[in-house]
Amino acid sequence: MSRPTATLLISCPDQKGLVAKFANFIYSNGGNIIHADQHTDFSAGLFLTRIEWELEGFNLPRDIIGAAFGSIAQPLNACWQLHFSDQIPRIAVWVSRQDHCLFDLIWRQRSQEIAAEIPLIISNHPHLQEIAEQFGIAYHHIPITPDTKPEQEAKQLELLQKYQIDLVVLAKYMQVLSSDFIAQFPHIINIHHSFLPAFPGANPYHRAADRGVKIIGATAHYVTQDLDEGPIIEQDVVRVSHRDQVEDLIRKGKDLERVVLARAVRLHLQNRVLVYGNRTVVFA
Amino acid sequence: MSRPTATLLISCPDQKGLVAKFANFIYSNGGNIIHADQHTDFSAGLFLTRIEWELEGFNLPRDIIGAAFGSIAQPLNACWQLHFSDQIPRIAVWVSRQDHCLFDLIWRQRSQEIAAEIPLIISNHPHLQEIAEQFGIAYHHIPITPDTKPEQEAKQLELLQKYQIDLVVLAKYMQVLSSDFIAQFPHIINIHHSFLPAFPGANPYHRAADRGVKIIGATAHYVTQDLDEGPIIEQDVVRVSHRDQVEDLIRKGKDLERVVLARAVRLHLQNRVLVYGNRTVVFA
Amino acid sequence: MSRPTATLLISCPDQKGLVAKFANFIYSNGGNIIHADQHTDFSAGLFLTRIEWELEGFNLPRDIIGAAFGSIAQPLNACWQLHFSDQIPRIAVWVSRQDHCLFDLIWRQRSQEIAAEIPLIISNHPHLQEIAEQFGIAYHHIPITPDTKPEQEAKQLELLQKYQIDLVVLAKYMQVLSSDFIAQFPHIINIHHSFLPAFPGANPYHRAADRGVKIIGATAHYVTQDLDEGPIIEQDVVRVSHRDQVEDLIRKGKDLERVVLARAVRLHLQNRVLVYGNRTVVFA
Amino acid sequence: MSRPTATLLISCPDQKGLVAKFANFIYSNGGNIIHADQHTDFSAGLFLTRIEWELEGFNLPRDIIGAAFGSIAQPLNACWQLHFSDQIPRIAVWVSRQDHCLFDLIWRQRSQEIAAEIPLIISNHPHLQEIAEQFGIAYHHIPITPDTKPEQEAKQLELLQKYQIDLVVLAKYMQVLSSDFIAQFPHIINIHHSFLPAFPGANPYHRAADRGVKIIGATAHYVTQDLDEGPIIEQDVVRVSHRDQVEDLIRKGKDLERVVLARAVRLHLQNRVLVYGNRTVVFA
Repeated sequence: MSRPTATLLISCPDQKGLVAKFANFIYSNGGNIIHADQHTDFSAGLFLTRIEWELEGFNLPRDIIGAAFGSIAQPLNACWQLHFSDQIPRIAVWVSRQDHCLFDLIWRQRSQEIAAEIPLIISNHPHLQEIAEQFGIAYHHIPITPDTKPEQEAKQLELLQKYQIDLVVLAKYMQVLSSDFIAQFPHIINIHHSFLPAFPGANPYHRAADRGVKIIGATAHYVTQDLDEGPIIEQDVVRVSHRDQVEDLIRKGKDLERVVLARAVRLHLQNRVLVYGNRTVVFA
Repeated sequence: MSRPTATLLISCPDQKGLVAKFANFIYSNGGNIIHADQHTDFSAGLFLTRIEWELEGFNLPRDIIGAAFGSIAQPLNACWQLHFSDQIPRIAVWVSRQDHCLFDLIWRQRSQEIAAEIPLIISNHPHLQEIAEQFGIAYHHIPITPDTKPEQEAKQLELLQKYQIDLVVLAKYMQVLSSDFIAQFPHIINIHHSFLPAFPGANPYHRAADRGVKIIGATAHYVTQDLDEGPIIEQDVVRVSHRDQVEDLIRKGKDLERVVLARAVRLHLQNRVLVYGNRTVVFA
Repeated sequence: MSRPTATLLISCPDQKGLVAKFANFIYSNGGNIIHADQHTDFSAGLFLTRIEWELEGFNLPRDIIGAAFGSIAQPLNACWQLHFSDQIPRIAVWVSRQDHCLFDLIWRQRSQEIAAEIPLIISNHPHLQEIAEQFGIAYHHIPITPDTKPEQEAKQLELLQKYQIDLVVLAKYMQVLSSDFIAQFPHIINIHHSFLPAFPGANPYHRAADRGVKIIGATAHYVTQDLDEGPIIEQDVVRVSHRDQVEDLIRKGKDLERVVLARAVRLHLQNRVLVYGNRTVVFA
Repeated sequence: MSRPTATLLISCPDQKGLVAKFANFIYSNGGNIIHADQHTDFSAGLFLTRIEWELEGFNLPRDIIGAAFGSIAQPLNACWQLHFSDQIPRIAVWVSRQDHCLFDLIWRQRSQEIAAEIPLIISNHPHLQEIAEQFGIAYHHIPITPDTKPEQEAKQLELLQKYQIDLVVLAKYMQVLSSDFIAQFPHIINIHHSFLPAFPGANPYHRAADRGVKIIGATAHYVTQDLDEGPIIEQDVVRVSHRDQVEDLIRKGKDLERVVLARAVRLHLQNRVLVYGNRTVVFA
């Protein structure tokens, strides 16, 4: 488990021999593949794969692997990412007033379910500062109004840079990010408190109660310019009944939100998620 | 199980003493309650209840029960329905080309999971005539075009009357019914092949594949003037992945559609569903 | 929500008129029922019910209600409990080394999902003391060996008395309680990390991996003399695959254990669980 | 979908280069891989893979593929099976008195969800003969008593041979097969009406009701000498409550049994199931 590995996430136009070519690259350099998975989207003519192998015994030094693989990837028009398991990503958790997802992420990080550091919490409210202190995490209160949004987002970007953040997790951050912000920092996972595409936007639990649905859900997705329209990473649902009032939906939903967000963050951090079009392949 | 029972479904403005008043009506007439359930929607100020009791030993003759209860219900401004378990409802199943829900309903009816008769199948296609013959059910092929819709719906209404139909089940009937039709025959249950309100309208599985959802669903609801907006009776879901192409979603969805529709029809036939506003209370 | 209510949980031999009699008791004393549910187990000839009503406007003073209802209950041979919603129960959480259920219960108590106080944590290990301190809860480390068990259980009982504990929650307490202990303090809920009756006893996740099951579960139950055989309050499951090794089952299981235990504790605290025989009726 | 493919299912001791070697075999002979999946059980030191490729354009003729691959497999100590998608397997469905799984399998076969032929039904009861006739399938009534079992099993084996059966599906066949029979015909899938290993043996629904479980399940598994102990292919569950009596568990269970058995049969027929030890890898 703890021996360092390298992971390639690759997508390229489908053609014969891709599995062989990629596997040969690892094998001919002495690598031991410990996980390989692939998917072909025939309608898109696209081949997508994830290969993870042990760095121990691999003949190429780390800083050469990328260049070496690039020479194989280029003629195939492949897009690819290379990750090393011992480079621990740094997460900024963004919250508003609700603490359940924040608490949950911190617990999972402490108990090593999530292999990442959480050096930074950003909030548009002061409410959760105490939790940050309890766990020794920097807390920045950055209130947002329509007028102050541009300058506040500039501050947020500065903080992401200062803390060397790799991933922003919107853990019930009840604010819309500007297109400009997303363009500058595109690595963002959000938890939406409905089974998208049902009930996008505000107050999904109230609308679910009004509609009288018998099941509610939660959706973790990458954030794109289109609100609640980004690629879905994970979803889950729970059964409700006429006995559940809005506050019961909110309570039941919190349990969903926690696990759905945590699963999505974990999959992302393990480099198991490949986005193509507006969809994801999840090599779970 | 087989001893005849009476069931009251009641909704009325909430006030003190309702449970006592309704229970006393049964008890003072010697009735043995075998199921009683109630729900109060506090925001709507509405009390809803279902009471089922054995007719054996009940002092009021059947044809008097309604009048007797009416005198209690009227001062409470209660809406109510009275059903007897040995009056077997008659169902018309409407289909297009797909046979899975039809097959399933027939099997459940034969194996006595569904206490009803199915004397009539109506379809806008000729494809499923053979199944109807196999099971000895009348099959009426009524093709629909925009031009012929009014006259064809007239024919359909005639058939419902001729066969003394109590409930129409749209078992993958891929046509929209006119408001006029619904006004004249409002007892209609439809199965929609998505987790409403996600993907209303046509081709939900294609749209689910495009959106990249990780879970798909099916929804059984009463049909109202607003397409796919009627009160939801039952929903269920199944997990899908990037490996599932549209045809896989369709295949997995069929299993959902069968059970969700069957559960809804069974609940309706057992008088366990009370509609209020655009929602249902399901006394399951 | 916050107005005080009284709740009666009643079980008695089935007979005509029970719903009416109990409802009349509330109504004749001016009570407003806000929740009533009942169940008849016909094979056991048993009627079970839960009735909750508002104390405001109820004509009987609190300390009279029990006696008044007792005179109705006695001729019916009814067993009953009376609870008041503003009497906040006190919970002792017992743990060993794992913190996920403890953390979760504390979070739910703080966020008022669980209406109880948690003044006491007991553990056979010192590991989780820090969490207790973080949240200001007394932590008693009581190590157990086969030899010291009787005296240590005596200490535990003393603590339960000292802290006026109403309910013990075994939140991954990896020790078996003696029959003697259970006889003296019978209000205990345990979370077992399998879908009982599959994999009772030790190491259920290892055995689940060995058996190659495709779904794992968790079970919250009342503790009785027979290990892992007590009345089940709540269960839930999650899908696993060949890719999940024992450590993955443990990780996925933790998410189940948290929610299943929390749901059971909440149902118990809301007086929604009635035990009869070795089963429960859950008036959810 | 309909173009013929070849599928290799391989298991062998884990070592470097396996993915490359197998992929190279396909690629060097001009094959286009359309599905490849692999799994390493590190504790067992075992590598397991499924590779499916199009026969069109593959340079090796069909009858040579096995020998050619054998020369690669032998030095690796690999166990392997080779299947061609256009060789349609032949199923014998064995039933007792219940018809729901039989009906369901026939429907799926007719609607091409299951790519197989069903030329034979065997039953220890005469009850389902009519269904066999309705669908033009041979029906053999072979009653079993403890005394006649050996000779009757001989008849059954004869029928399997006569009808060239590849797979026996026990679709609620309420008889135990002898070890001798299983040794002679080991390709058998059974549906057990519980969430194994809970409630093995007889009357699982009665025992589930007695135990008061809140969830019931069904399990499809390969049949081995140890009753209800064979490798599990698929399981699923459904929630139940105190309101569900034994007959409700049976009814809800039927819906589970149908889909769980159908999924298992489909996975098996698509050569997606690899057994090792007493477990399965399901390349779904």
